[in-house]
Amino acid sequence: MTAHPRLSMNVGTIKYASFDESLRVLVDAGYESVGLWREPVAEVGLAEAAKRFGDSGLRLSTLCRQGFFTMAEGAERRASIDENRRAIEETATLAAAGAEGSRAVLVLVAGGLPEGSRDLVGARDLVADALEELAPEASAAGVTLAVEPLHPMYASDRAVVSTLKQALDLASPFDPAVVGAAVDTFHIWWDPEALAQIERAGREGRIATYQVCDWATPLPADVLLGRHYPGDGVIDFERFTRAVEASGYDGDVEVELFNADIWATPHDEVARRTAEAFADAVAPHLAVRTATAAVG
Amino acid sequence: MTAHPRLSMNVGTIKYASFDESLRVLVDAGYESVGLWREPVAEVGLAEAAKRFGDSGLRLSTLCRQGFFTMAEGAERRASIDENRRAIEETATLAAAGAEGSRAVLVLVAGGLPEGSRDLVGARDLVADALEELAPEASAAGVTLAVEPLHPMYASDRAVVSTLKQALDLASPFDPAVVGAAVDTFHIWWDPEALAQIERAGREGRIATYQVCDWATPLPADVLLGRHYPGDGVIDFERFTRAVEASGYDGDVEVELFNADIWATPHDEVARRTAEAFADAVAPHLAVRTATAAVG
Repeated sequence: MTAHPRLSMNVGTIKYASFDESLRVLVDAGYESVGLWREPVAEVGLAEAAKRFGDSGLRLSTLCRQGFFTMAEGAERRASIDENRRAIEETATLAAAGAEGSRAVLVLVAGGLPEGSRDLVGARDLVADALEELAPEASAAGVTLAVEPLHPMYASDRAVVSTLKQALDLASPFDPAVVGAAVDTFHIWWDPEALAQIERAGREGRIATYQVCDWATPLPADVLLGRHYPGDGVIDFERFTRAVEASGYDGDVEVELFNADIWATPHDEVARRTAEAFADAVAPHLAVRTATAAVG
Repeated sequence: MTAHPRLSMNVGTIKYASFDESLRVLVDAGYESVGLWREPVAEVGLAEAAKRFGDSGLRLSTLCRQGFFTMAEGAERRASIDENRRAIEETATLAAAGAEGSRAVLVLVAGGLPEGSRDLVGARDLVADALEELAPEASAAGVTLAVEPLHPMYASDRAVVSTLKQALDLASPFDPAVVGAAVDTFHIWWDPEALAQIERAGREGRIATYQVCDWATPLPADVLLGRHYPGDGVIDFERFTRAVEASGYDGDVEVELFNADIWATPHDEVARRTAEAFADAVAPHLAVRTATAAVG
């Protein structure tokens, strides 16, 4: 089997696969690249996971995820910053172990409002503070931090960073090789400013990852799980993909689907279906066929 | 009983009350102002509804709602434009019948993507076209059209207008007395640009209505019904209310709650609870105690 050479599947799409199983599924389905999650890596242990990942022959597109640093200064915040330090190290280790073209990109989800707080502005300031603290460490490790704006429906409980403009504003004080943004169609498709901000992100060299999944309604009872294969919803992948390509981004394109039905589907079938959906809905709009960029 | 003199309850909060019952409930609870819906008015008939409304002694804060004009040109679009014409007439009639200070404001919900369409940009252009067609009629009737940005989670199926900036941009070609925007905390609280756009809306004289209801998670299975009494969620009503007041808005402040639990509560209790929540969470931040402005 083959998959598009720039397609990466984020293993969150096959959430219940073990670390080894997820690598096996993707290799068998002809993928060249994968987005890993920290938890399955931790189950295996970083050194062993890096070895097995290297043996798979896959590239790393991103490591998901850390962040969650909107709490006020104190022990909990220190623990969060330390967790982010470990995630930076894991990103560097896995990217070094992966095949040529691996991207040392760590996806950061900001975190929601602290318990009992209504201070959204203050929480956003705390994200800026965390980036200032972590950027030197990411730089030293050769890792790019990808600030991910999440859909505004998650603003209170998951990510106070809600738009690409906001992510780029947060990234702006830093070297683009060190702090960039994640462009995920699911999160930003509705934004009247999205295309202009993609153009800006490209100009500023800050697209750290491009992720494609689709939006459809009605939303499921758990709104975290409403992601669909590209083409199964309302997002105009031609418009977004051409905008990202025009911006100069030529790295892997990641599919990350949180969806209870997809999680309940056999993993090999999900990998095949993802590759087909990508081939139909996204690949025709890619200007560059082969992933060429290594970042970080 | 008394309620704050600038508090208006939108009758969507007591969805299952008849037209007469909703007026009775609000008068008994000491309200001076009400936001009406078209459907209960239609059940009574416009002339009779206007008479009974006039007899109630209440002011009109808004009429909800029309819009829904994102379809391409054709019979369906013509029917939608005609429906909006009738809604404009109803707004003028009810505002004229209401007590002094009644606001002839018609709330417009844009509508979602047309069936099968992925052209969000095109759908937004169709909203602009509809406003151009309706503005002269609103102007002639002395009615202000309030373009309401809805939360981005409704962008595909309910309203392609997702931010206050977008609503103000759509309104900008027109006289502010004819096309303004609805500022509803539930829909815009997450927006990093919200406070700046409220300031802009005030400067441009385009705040047609200020609506307060709260956001809390988890969202209910039907995400349309996730609205809460002010103070029961995460929205910073001090910040928003002060911003709206500083912008010069001095009209009614409307509470509109779509929530299955609230709909199942006795209407008199909802009216009382709404007035109490408003007194606690919103009223302390109002600069002007008495509604003074008539618009349109």
